[in-house]
Amino acid sequence: MLISLEGIDGCGKSTQGRLLADALRAQGRDVVLTREPGGSPGAEEIRRLLVEGAGERWSPETECLLFTAARRDHLERTIRPALEAGRVVVTDRFADSTRVYQGAARGDLRDMVDRLHALMIGVEPDRTFVIDIDPATGLARGNARGGAEDRFESLGLSFQQRLATGFRALAAEYPDRVRLIDGSGTAGDVSARILAAL
Amino acid sequence: MLISLEGIDGCGKSTQGRLLADALRAQGRDVVLTREPGGSPGAEEIRRLLVEGAGERWSPETECLLFTAARRDHLERTIRPALEAGRVVVTDRFADSTRVYQGAARGDLRDMVDRLHALMIGVEPDRTFVIDIDPATGLARGNARGGAEDRFESLGLSFQQRLATGFRALAAEYPDRVRLIDGSGTAGDVSARILAAL
Repeated sequence: MLISLEGIDGCGKSTQGRLLADALRAQGRDVVLTREPGGSPGAEEIRRLLVEGAGERWSPETECLLFTAARRDHLERTIRPALEAGRVVVTDRFADSTRVYQGAARGDLRDMVDRLHALMIGVEPDRTFVIDIDPATGLARGNARGGAEDRFESLGLSFQQRLATGFRALAAEYPDRVRLIDGSGTAGDVSARILAAL
Repeated sequence: MLISLEGIDGCGKSTQGRLLADALRAQGRDVVLTREPGGSPGAEEIRRLLVEGAGERWSPETECLLFTAARRDHLERTIRPALEAGRVVVTDRFADSTRVYQGAARGDLRDMVDRLHALMIGVEPDRTFVIDIDPATGLARGNARGGAEDRFESLGLSFQQRLATGFRALAAEYPDRVRLIDGSGTAGDVSARILAAL
């Protein structure tokens, strides 16, 4: 089973990934916790090109190709081998992030994103949880983290607002797969909502 | 006008690019001499991921996405602005290299390569010169260069032979655009053949 966690920057995906993996392990499941961009040695090298540096460093189209390259490597070297070994994979972001970041929020490129995904990836998660929080709260949390990985945060609040709108639209577009999770309250509150939905 | 030089590793493309640019400048033309993978600051960063390291570092599919990302950046930031300013662009490799390296020599991926090119690049050179030399000679020259950029050379002679066959097939596939140039003799001999064909 492949489970993805999605949402805007600072929404708590990484924390929720750890809590979800812990809960599944407590049920006796063998879990691989991974992330995008990255999740395999090659994809982690591509990650640096994507999450560091100036916001306009790449066009949305070039960015989309780099995310897809990283995803293909992640899929081949980490996700597929784990699924074939019967493990549960929990990934912090997958293709929905590209649909929203490059497909909607950075330009009207959804058709290109869908065609590129069909050609080069072709896999969807079994379940996706979008953690829905206020964009201003997410951006403040993302900026508070510091470090060099602030490229998308540097695009500002209106960008985060377009992302939040895009993620909510995905939940409506894929009602069987994507569940919108209220991200308010403590990390434990949010984790309980995800486990209940799962 | 966009002119590309193509061929196997060590065939003399870089030298011929310089000689061709010099000859066109002597005719009073404004020439941009560039190369792939690379040719723009972002694409040069992607280049390192592609030409250094172990041969099996990336699958052919991931490699194809990385080359296409670099090409998109090169096209947006270097080639298109130069063509719009009325300059002649001479590039050491373009999309034909992906057709041959990833489309034919590393797997039977030509259909995927063509669909990815149509979706994300969509531009062909006005003229392409394939410098045709003996694969063993090319490989010996490529290896003699030294340095870290030996990833494709490391795939060995049978790979270079598949590349040479692939480039010859391209000249037959695109007779109006692609011209096969005899790469034997001195650099001056080869340059004279290219200028005569142009």
